[in-house]
Amino acid sequence: MTAVQRRTSRDIRTANRYAVLRQVIAGSPASRQKLAAATGLSLATVANLVGELIERRMVLEVGFEESDGGRPRGLVAANPRGGVLIGVDLGETFIHAEAYDLRLEVLATAGGEFGADESRPDAVADRITAAVTEVAAKAAVHGEVLGVGVSVPGQVDRERGIAVFAPNWDWRDVPLHDLLAARLPGPLHLDNPMRAAMAAELWFGAARDCADAVAVILGTGVGAGLAVGGALHRGRSNSAGEWGHTTLVLDGRPCRCGNRGCVEAYTGAPGIMRTLAELRPGSPLLREGDQQATVRGLGRAAAGGDSDALAVVEETARCLGAGVADLVNLLNPEVVVLSSWVAEALGETLVRAVRGAVAARALARPWGATRIALSRLGSSAVSLGAASFALEGALAPLRGRLAG
Amino acid sequence: MTAVQRRTSRDIRTANRYAVLRQVIAGSPASRQKLAAATGLSLATVANLVGELIERRMVLEVGFEESDGGRPRGLVAANPRGGVLIGVDLGETFIHAEAYDLRLEVLATAGGEFGADESRPDAVADRITAAVTEVAAKAAVHGEVLGVGVSVPGQVDRERGIAVFAPNWDWRDVPLHDLLAARLPGPLHLDNPMRAAMAAELWFGAARDCADAVAVILGTGVGAGLAVGGALHRGRSNSAGEWGHTTLVLDGRPCRCGNRGCVEAYTGAPGIMRTLAELRPGSPLLREGDQQATVRGLGRAAAGGDSDALAVVEETARCLGAGVADLVNLLNPEVVVLSSWVAEALGETLVRAVRGAVAARALARPWGATRIALSRLGSSAVSLGAASFALEGALAPLRGRLAG
Ligand SMILES: [Zn+2]
Ligand SMILES: [Zn+2]
Repeated sequence: MTAVQRRTSRDIRTANRYAVLRQVIAGSPASRQKLAAATGLSLATVANLVGELIERRMVLEVGFEESDGGRPRGLVAANPRGGVLIGVDLGETFIHAEAYDLRLEVLATAGGEFGADESRPDAVADRITAAVTEVAAKAAVHGEVLGVGVSVPGQVDRERGIAVFAPNWDWRDVPLHDLLAARLPGPLHLDNPMRAAMAAELWFGAARDCADAVAVILGTGVGAGLAVGGALHRGRSNSAGEWGHTTLVLDGRPCRCGNRGCVEAYTGAPGIMRTLAELRPGSPLLREGDQQATVRGLGRAAAGGDSDALAVVEETARCLGAGVADLVNLLNPEVVVLSSWVAEALGETLVRAVRGAVAARALARPWGATRIALSRLGSSAVSLGAASFALEGALAPLRGRLAG
Repeated sequence: MTAVQRRTSRDIRTANRYAVLRQVIAGSPASRQKLAAATGLSLATVANLVGELIERRMVLEVGFEESDGGRPRGLVAANPRGGVLIGVDLGETFIHAEAYDLRLEVLATAGGEFGADESRPDAVADRITAAVTEVAAKAAVHGEVLGVGVSVPGQVDRERGIAVFAPNWDWRDVPLHDLLAARLPGPLHLDNPMRAAMAAELWFGAARDCADAVAVILGTGVGAGLAVGGALHRGRSNSAGEWGHTTLVLDGRPCRCGNRGCVEAYTGAPGIMRTLAELRPGSPLLREGDQQATVRGLGRAAAGGDSDALAVVEETARCLGAGVADLVNLLNPEVVVLSSWVAEALGETLVRAVRGAVAARALARPWGATRIALSRLGSSAVSLGAASFALEGALAPLRGRLAG
């Protein structure tokens, strides 16, 4: 009847395989018994899935541990030479690519900033190809490339590999899969930064072991990755998470989406620059046309006690806190993780102020169940999440080669 | 690792039993083959669960249907004499109780309006007891009472049976279970109108067969029931859905929750009365102190083309549409159902205006995947949902009596 109930046994097998491998990665070396306890799967199911992963050389037997009064238990770990995963974080002002081994340890990075004049689809496809080629070459000794996860801003059609709508670049229905697939060293898995960051936090970051969580992405654009019941929430057309374009001030500041008063217009990097210009006209902190320099400078100045910078961070936190309180009231999550480069730049100064603003607005019961945390994954969160999509994708085809 | 993955096999068995029984109720008479197709469970599992339900006399064998070239298939249906479920919708200005048979057909109703001076916990417990006793007596011929679902406004602790916070009545930590349990004819299942209405829409209403859906509750209070992946989303502390207290206008109208600019302050019945007073001072449509008379009068006048009433409905729809657009952008649901008495009173006039307001604000991709519908369940939605919680609860204890 429902999407969940209609999942086929093949889907469930892929999901279970991925759950087991995630636990192997998170806690190597691990016994099958420990993996069964961590995933809630039966020992027989885990043993079967581990066998598949060993046959595929993604997982290795690495020894034994003593068990109480029983025979020694075999231990398994992710194979560092079992293949390479590549994750690409395409931001609106930068590209960041990383190659990982199957332990999700970073093998190589590439990328850099780019300007608005470089945002044509073919130019962006060239930048992605160059960055992926560079990290793949450096990582080649660790095995074949099992997949390339690419996060692009805006609305994404995953199945068809299309960037449906990226307003900052004026992209509509850009066929990235067609532009990229033949030039990449492994299968392409396309999604957006909200979902990539949420996946990274859920499997490897501040939301680990949480059922219900939110990853708030603060960059040039603003959005929210959502986890519900321990899984990513994608929505009907993979569009969930457009929190940046929810209303904070009815009839407020114009937003690039065409509406007024959106959360992003106050808490994205351009919104913060506008707040600075409004609160402190002529401030030398404002570096016109350079979001990164302005926001990073604000963060450093605020951390140093500069009153102008603190006023801007406070006002940003007031708006952000109202929006985060909405997420807390609506979704009742265990954790809200603040992620991406603006959150990193404004750091704990921002997080403390946001906590105060949320506490003042959220209802007591959901607020009492929530914590607000700064991402510990730094600038790698989205690339790591994109690589996790590649890993998940690499596990699905197993069904064609091994008994399902 | 996650809540979903940690579900015990007993939980899963209860959920599967409930999924099968819902399908029996929705499509009686049904073959086991049809139930397997509708639930995604194996035929063997369905046969086993149906056997349990027959043994418990909740389901009956009712005949056979021919199958293509095979032997006739047995058909089952919900037993109309298999027990009684009671659902109570405790609103802020009324109480509405219904008794149902296991086909969820209404056997009896009771209730009425009550005033703010009747909102003391012991007085409310007396009203609930009287209404439940009345409908249970009328329904007694249909079997024993299997459970009593009670929906109360505000924050609810289901496990402990406590009404944690109901601001309109100034209730804090009211132990409803202790006040009620010994006086009711069956086990008490407590929750709130957001979740009850969402359950009713998801299993029996406009969100049937949807994975991701929202039920927007418009009454004195405002909230949203959320369904994700075909199941209710409750959140970490059963507090999800407090959409009425998300911000629509930063620093806007004061709200009874203590904040300013909440959705409820513009779209709940008292907010609509304030909009009327602001837009048309001195209007005879305003019936001071009587929400029901004012809002129902507005609905009738707007349907008849009265320009003052239409102006109020338009402005309400503009605010509601902005809030619903936020839900569409954030959650990307298949359907948003407008429910409860204010939605019923303003009817299709409101729904049309809301569609226009959402279309103007939501992003194209999520909006293209969503429809906005008026609830078809009328004033019974919350009692029906509350009864469904009683039904779900009645299925869990089976595990102690039958082989699990
Ligand atoms: Zn916007
Ligand atoms: Zn409020």
